[in-house]
Amino acid sequence: MDRSDLISDIAERKLVSRLCGIFSQDECGSIMAGAGKDDCAVLDISDEDCMVITTDMLHLKTDFPAAMTPWQIGWMSAAVNLSDVASMGAKPMGFLSALGVTKDMQLGDAEDISRGMDACAKFCDTSVIGGDIDLHDELTITGTALGMVKKEHLLRRTGAKPGDLVCVTGNAGSAGAALLAIQHDLDVSDELLNTLLEPVPRTDEGQKLAKTGAVTSMMDTSDGLAMSLYDLMDSNGIGFRIYEGQLPIDDEVCSLVGEDDALELALYTGGDFELLFTVSPSMVEAAKSVCYLNVVGEVTDDTLITMINREDAEVSIYRKGYVHLGRFDNI
Amino acid sequence: MDRSDLISDIAERKLVSRLCGIFSQDECGSIMAGAGKDDCAVLDISDEDCMVITTDMLHLKTDFPAAMTPWQIGWMSAAVNLSDVASMGAKPMGFLSALGVTKDMQLGDAEDISRGMDACAKFCDTSVIGGDIDLHDELTITGTALGMVKKEHLLRRTGAKPGDLVCVTGNAGSAGAALLAIQHDLDVSDELLNTLLEPVPRTDEGQKLAKTGAVTSMMDTSDGLAMSLYDLMDSNGIGFRIYEGQLPIDDEVCSLVGEDDALELALYTGGDFELLFTVSPSMVEAAKSVCYLNVVGEVTDDTLITMINREDAEVSIYRKGYVHLGRFDNI
Repeated sequence: MDRSDLISDIAERKLVSRLCGIFSQDECGSIMAGAGKDDCAVLDISDEDCMVITTDMLHLKTDFPAAMTPWQIGWMSAAVNLSDVASMGAKPMGFLSALGVTKDMQLGDAEDISRGMDACAKFCDTSVIGGDIDLHDELTITGTALGMVKKEHLLRRTGAKPGDLVCVTGNAGSAGAALLAIQHDLDVSDELLNTLLEPVPRTDEGQKLAKTGAVTSMMDTSDGLAMSLYDLMDSNGIGFRIYEGQLPIDDEVCSLVGEDDALELALYTGGDFELLFTVSPSMVEAAKSVCYLNVVGEVTDDTLITMINREDAEVSIYRKGYVHLGRFDNI
Repeated sequence: MDRSDLISDIAERKLVSRLCGIFSQDECGSIMAGAGKDDCAVLDISDEDCMVITTDMLHLKTDFPAAMTPWQIGWMSAAVNLSDVASMGAKPMGFLSALGVTKDMQLGDAEDISRGMDACAKFCDTSVIGGDIDLHDELTITGTALGMVKKEHLLRRTGAKPGDLVCVTGNAGSAGAALLAIQHDLDVSDELLNTLLEPVPRTDEGQKLAKTGAVTSMMDTSDGLAMSLYDLMDSNGIGFRIYEGQLPIDDEVCSLVGEDDALELALYTGGDFELLFTVSPSMVEAAKSVCYLNVVGEVTDDTLITMINREDAEVSIYRKGYVHLGRFDNI
């Protein structure tokens, strides 16, 4: 990479890594995890507790499908950040919103956006505690979410060990299927549409799972299952073997697009905001006792991600999915 | 106000107040100050400590003068947020940046923005701990800054009492004069230009002042001295009498535009990021012992803001200054 390279020609994760390299974080003793290391930054705030914090910028063109109401836009802006707090096992402590509104927006729409944020924050047992408002050419919302967690319960992307089981809450590919349905005007249930339009941050599940002590590593699946598996692989230096037959795919999605495309959606589309985590085999019942989950595979010791398909053949899962620099890669 | 009113027809502070009214903050016991109440939201995180947090969205068109280098853009994005942390008397604990870059930006410029942020965070004895990157049509940076402060040292906008003295760190109107100089291609010192292009967050002064116990209320002057005085008036139900002869105005600004226009700049232009605070008269020496400040007036018991001018006449200070919804009002 060279200084004169255009941003649009650089892969997102490479760009993030390059910019994070600029930040001199080692000098501040209170930082337990800094930029680029996890779903949230982690601050050491007392002997027992740490604070997690995350920020996400969303905007009309790439993040809010045209079918989204202002209320849903507000909900979504809070949900994407609270999902990151969930993935650290933390209890949400507040949400802040920097709202860039357009001149021609009506007050009622700005109010509905605020109501959607408020509803999502409340759902996660917290509140909108602050923010900023600005005039912008394109509707742009940057959310920031905070959470607190006992140090002993903090979940990180690191910690997965070979032999651990791979688990996921909820379904995979539903949000991707909903987007496909909207784009192609397909008739689907409101329940399926809402997986995309009103994603549910798994803050309750995250906290409960953290307290079991069963989880060895965790992150959310907002960038898609495959991309998230690759992120965990990169963080842990391990690999995964996933079983196609164990992937939780909604029946409606299979009926809508067929089994092959449903698998494609489950692996390679983002927007589901489920928790993806690893559990030591002896503790899986403890994890199952606190929330709905599916065991979808196991951690291996080689840095490869494969899938045992329905014909019992081992095939590759590819490093692709949702990247934030502008587009869904594959639908 | 009506649901169909356009955002652009509503005064900023009215809009903020309307939207803040939507957020149900009373249900969360850990919120000591929520949306719209202060320069930062305040969370109760332990018996002794609280955390302050603030977010600000800046973008190319309205917040970054064309003369700003990418490094300065990065510095500025951090500075505006760290100044809010300073105004609560808190120690900065981290900065997060959501960076919306344009497709045609070169990597080197994004790196320089990151370096500017890093330098400003370091200057304030903290680090860039996290963030997000996104492609955007207009360069847009939302910063979030965190700080911690002992509850007994937390400074709020509320607390000013009649008879208190009004103080300000640094100069008033310098950033406004620098903007004027850039707009009209006037020859000025780099030192003056940098008050606009590289504003210094008063985090050190804020913490030291907080520890003296002398300060009864505090905020920063980012929206201009007059607007900030009105904000303190609204928060405290008190008024102010300011003395023109005591206003700290840089000699270069007076030479550049003459005394009358310099006064106009000192009162009504934003961007200075100094601390404006009230002190009980018996404690003013304690405040002076920890940082450079000027006493510029006193708190009165009527909700009026006046100024004793150089002819010893009492004149009004008006409610005008920098508002974030798009423009400087008066230059």
